[in-house]
Amino acid sequence: MDMDYREVEGTREFVARLAHGEDWRAQIEDFARAEEIEAAFFVGLGAVQDAKLLYYDQTDLEYYPMEFDEPLEVAACIGNVSLLEGDPFAHTHAVLSRADGSTVAGHLDAGTVFAGELYVRAFEESLERAHDEPTDLDLWPL
Amino acid sequence: MDMDYREVEGTREFVARLAHGEDWRAQIEDFARAEEIEAAFFVGLGAVQDAKLLYYDQTDLEYYPMEFDEPLEVAACIGNVSLLEGDPFAHTHAVLSRADGSTVAGHLDAGTVFAGELYVRAFEESLERAHDEPTDLDLWPL
Amino acid sequence: MDMDYREVEGTREFVARLAHGEDWRAQIEDFARAEEIEAAFFVGLGAVQDAKLLYYDQTDLEYYPMEFDEPLEVAACIGNVSLLEGDPFAHTHAVLSRADGSTVAGHLDAGTVFAGELYVRAFEESLERAHDEPTDLDLWPL
Repeated sequence: MDMDYREVEGTREFVARLAHGEDWRAQIEDFARAEEIEAAFFVGLGAVQDAKLLYYDQTDLEYYPMEFDEPLEVAACIGNVSLLEGDPFAHTHAVLSRADGSTVAGHLDAGTVFAGELYVRAFEESLERAHDEPTDLDLWPL
Repeated sequence: MDMDYREVEGTREFVARLAHGEDWRAQIEDFARAEEIEAAFFVGLGAVQDAKLLYYDQTDLEYYPMEFDEPLEVAACIGNVSLLEGDPFAHTHAVLSRADGSTVAGHLDAGTVFAGELYVRAFEESLERAHDEPTDLDLWPL
Repeated sequence: MDMDYREVEGTREFVARLAHGEDWRAQIEDFARAEEIEAAFFVGLGAVQDAKLLYYDQTDLEYYPMEFDEPLEVAACIGNVSLLEGDPFAHTHAVLSRADGSTVAGHLDAGTVFAGELYVRAFEESLERAHDEPTDLDLWPL
């Protein structure tokens, strides 16, 4: 089976500075709502004061949380925005690091921003997530 | 010595959902072949059911493999497409993570997709890899 | 508080091959100076012969260095270019990995390139860093 893909038109692009003390992912979703963005990809870097990562168990088909109540660099953040039940959802993965360089990574559910910088490329298309077999995830039918 | 660079024209861009159960990198190369893409950069995120990473030893000038036969999140994936011996090659690096957040990373040779989402920016130029001294790698003369 | 953002115009984009034996970050800044780029985002991958990472302590509000005198893959590199005291500064984060896949990550201050490939998206705007409260960092007023 080949991958599904769609050619898109990137008509708007943005640089952003995330607000100190606010949630990393929620800000991206608020921004998408304000700018009426229904499809985008983004990359970012910065630091968080804490983080909640989710790990999706491929056998149980469930998300399990990990909480890190410590300051962490955001060494790499890659994600996208699309609609989930009609509302912008920022699917966000991140690699986080400590003072000794050691890392933790995964699906970033939440993290209190210390500082953060993003590039967002918005597409004029609308992407909507829908339930997928066999992953039990909400993915894009393209 | 300064870095070599070339200004490019990004005339087409794509979002993609990688096919469950198929190889992460091979799908990108099949897509590039189908769309006649000879130069592109991409970023992605998702999860794999297993992964084969390669580490390039800078002294031996050889790739050494690492096999991870376990489910892993793709916390970050950055790569590009160019021609290697006339055929699209997806040079792919990835940071992978486990249920406890611990990570492994490197040059992603292969990985069975659980789920994956990509942004691909294709350039109208053609980039071709050629043997490079002193790295003994196939790099771009730009 | 919401995040600050600015819509930008990406009028030029580049692919680059970093010069073997030279500094990863300095080359990006030299390139930005040569091309008169005052705002850009970039992603990259490759390998370095050594690396100096910085960790910003969120309590002390100080950068602390970590030196890695060993060959490392650049599994993921995300950064941006903007002006700091009038000169291009490449804010660069990276995830680095070893022969066993183990990783270190953070703010990349310096690293001797073994091989490196970048995508740079330049904006026609100028972004200038300025002192920020409460982080004591140089951030963008957008």
